Amino acid sequence: MKKVYLDHIASTPLHSEVLEAMLPHLKGNFGNPQSLHSIGQEALRALEEAREKVAQLIHAQASEVYFTSSGSESNNFALKGLALAQRSQGTHVVLSAIEHQSVLHSAKSLEKLGFSTSLVPVDKFGVVNPEDVKKAITPETILVSVMLANSEVGTVQPVQEIAQVCRARDVLFHTDAVAAVGNVPVDVSELGVDALSLAGNQFYGPKGSAALFVKKGIRILPFIDGGIQEGGRRAGTEDVAAIVGLGQAAEIAMRDMEKRAEAVRSLRDKLIQELPQRVGHVFLTGHPKDRLPHHASFCIEFIEGEAMLLNLDMQGISASSGSACTSKALKASHVLLAMGIDHALAQGSLVFSLIEDTTSEDIDYLLEVFPPVIERLRKMSPLYTKYLEEKEK
Amino acid sequence: MKKVYLDHIASTPLHSEVLEAMLPHLKGNFGNPQSLHSIGQEALRALEEAREKVAQLIHAQASEVYFTSSGSESNNFALKGLALAQRSQGTHVVLSAIEHQSVLHSAKSLEKLGFSTSLVPVDKFGVVNPEDVKKAITPETILVSVMLANSEVGTVQPVQEIAQVCRARDVLFHTDAVAAVGNVPVDVSELGVDALSLAGNQFYGPKGSAALFVKKGIRILPFIDGGIQEGGRRAGTEDVAAIVGLGQAAEIAMRDMEKRAEAVRSLRDKLIQELPQRVGHVFLTGHPKDRLPHHASFCIEFIEGEAMLLNLDMQGISASSGSACTSKALKASHVLLAMGIDHALAQGSLVFSLIEDTTSEDIDYLLEVFPPVIERLRKMSPLYTKYLEEKEK
Repeated sequence: MKKVYLDHIASTPLHSEVLEAMLPHLKGNFGNPQSLHSIGQEALRALEEAREKVAQLIHAQASEVYFTSSGSESNNFALKGLALAQRSQGTHVVLSAIEHQSVLHSAKSLEKLGFSTSLVPVDKFGVVNPEDVKKAITPETILVSVMLANSEVGTVQPVQEIAQVCRARDVLFHTDAVAAVGNVPVDVSELGVDALSLAGNQFYGPKGSAALFVKKGIRILPFIDGGIQEGGRRAGTEDVAAIVGLGQAAEIAMRDMEKRAEAVRSLRDKLIQELPQRVGHVFLTGHPKDRLPHHASFCIEFIEGEAMLLNLDMQGISASSGSACTSKALKASHVLLAMGIDHALAQGSLVFSLIEDTTSEDIDYLLEVFPPVIERLRKMSPLYTKYLEEKEK
Repeated sequence: MKKVYLDHIASTPLHSEVLEAMLPHLKGNFGNPQSLHSIGQEALRALEEAREKVAQLIHAQASEVYFTSSGSESNNFALKGLALAQRSQGTHVVLSAIEHQSVLHSAKSLEKLGFSTSLVPVDKFGVVNPEDVKKAITPETILVSVMLANSEVGTVQPVQEIAQVCRARDVLFHTDAVAAVGNVPVDVSELGVDALSLAGNQFYGPKGSAALFVKKGIRILPFIDGGIQEGGRRAGTEDVAAIVGLGQAAEIAMRDMEKRAEAVRSLRDKLIQELPQRVGHVFLTGHPKDRLPHHASFCIEFIEGEAMLLNLDMQGISASSGSACTSKALKASHVLLAMGIDHALAQGSLVFSLIEDTTSEDIDYLLEVFPPVIERLRKMSPLYTKYLEEKEK
């Protein structure tokens, strides 16, 4: 059976050049970067080379990059570390309503420590209005966090404008750029952000590799207390192989990003255009233009996401119905609900996210396989039966 | 030049069977374990198999094992997660004075949130007296953390007795077993611990792989907030390859532990016996018998650890002068000071920790190379000159 992997947002495959770069650090070079002997120093050199590459990818300085183990850890580090470090200035945090759970739940943890949170709404395309951020900021606000791109609906936010609003009010601004970095150009100075999260497995790097950018001079508390690793802000023996992989993925992204984006964008556009033509009651979610180049998301009326995923999987197609971090919770996505999509329709969420290997044949195969799958599922759907009955009246 | 790696405590090499087990998860099987499609489910199966193996190694249930990214993260998770979850019962934490920085500094962070800490002393061998733990526990105490084995001096603690003391007082007990698990038999029920930290790179598994055992029914707050991974207690895309590597390392440890320990113990004993015979003013640190089988640690009078490490490195020998997490801080170790070793002598700390590949020739080479290295360094040491002058008087 043909295999078509369209779940970039859950995890990209590892690029062969990334694995090649990692292997020496899994075989011979096993040193601990904190060891003073030459085997340790060799690991340290690899670590700092990778830091340099990751910094280049986002136009930061190497000293502003802290390695972590996942995008979720980076988000926890940013939210908790920044909020707790600025505690004496205030205890109010502003987030968008469509942030990743690792941002939203970090804020919940901060609430238990005496902080309060305001959620800024989004429009029907999932876009945050910078004016709403401005209105949400109070004299107590010390941190705003709005994501760069949403992995469930693909929408890219006007982060530069939001950062300007924050700067004007002297409030720190963090952006969760996990879905964006490595896939679209990201420049931390151009964006004007104080902190930014990224993760390797979103751009052909390894799982377990991620980073938090923190602008020079910004105070942040350590996330993992202990040794002197990562400037004393993130203790624990560095996962050198994963970090080297992240660095290599960053280098490849700088080289291939444009080419990759161009290739997936045209295939993605075909999917966005043709899928709703082939099957009725299929609606694009997220912004029609300001979206990640590899990202096509829909709501399919009358069917639940899980059933579609399992049936597509039987046809060799891997897709998702939202964030992998919550997929098994089987609740309607807070992102779709915040965009004003009703609960029943939100249950039919389906995301196709292309990878660099995705071919025109893959998309044709999906377009061919999709209608009968949906037709079959709708035949079993009480919601669809009800719809047909009401239509006939 | 001959290369002799004697820095097990900083990081072990990756076992070739571990790399072999990891590779499929770095090549073809790149799925996210939380994805519903079959590529994701394949990753999930690998994840749960690894959890089963790690659980077996410490005689726990699979559902009691939470994967993390380092021993330090496990210690942070345990200290902060357990203390904050029991906050309504009390806010006092008891630690030994020789805990790893990731335990000590986590307690410092808890102090900022209103907790208080008591440090229990150790004797000259680095052993904690369970009676002292008993004395330190107050009605406010909710958590005790004493390590199973110390990586700087090798001493193994009477953890079973300490756990009994805690249970009798209805206080939770965590042990940092990072230096011990995979090297000596560890049974969580026999020890009677409520939580236990372990790390893969201490027993031929990958860096970036670690776990926290939390006994069923014990309340612990999440360490990384976000998605539903690890029972909602440690969010973030799982590092499947590293976790599979940890599982494989656990399986190998169950098979080879005894054989490995026997081999390194006799070589280690030779080193402990002969090194002080070959060079004057060399003192064993830690317990002469109750110590990790691969661990030989000394204080070398009149010389600083760093100089010895660099000079041994020039002879191809990799050693350490204590925890890699603090090595570059170049301060006298808090562990040695707590054992009553004076500040000047503590500066001359040197740890040789054997790995499974260490040969009799390696130890002979060290015994041969060591005296001239020390002699040369002492010639340049003002402390030694002063000692000789005073001796002549």
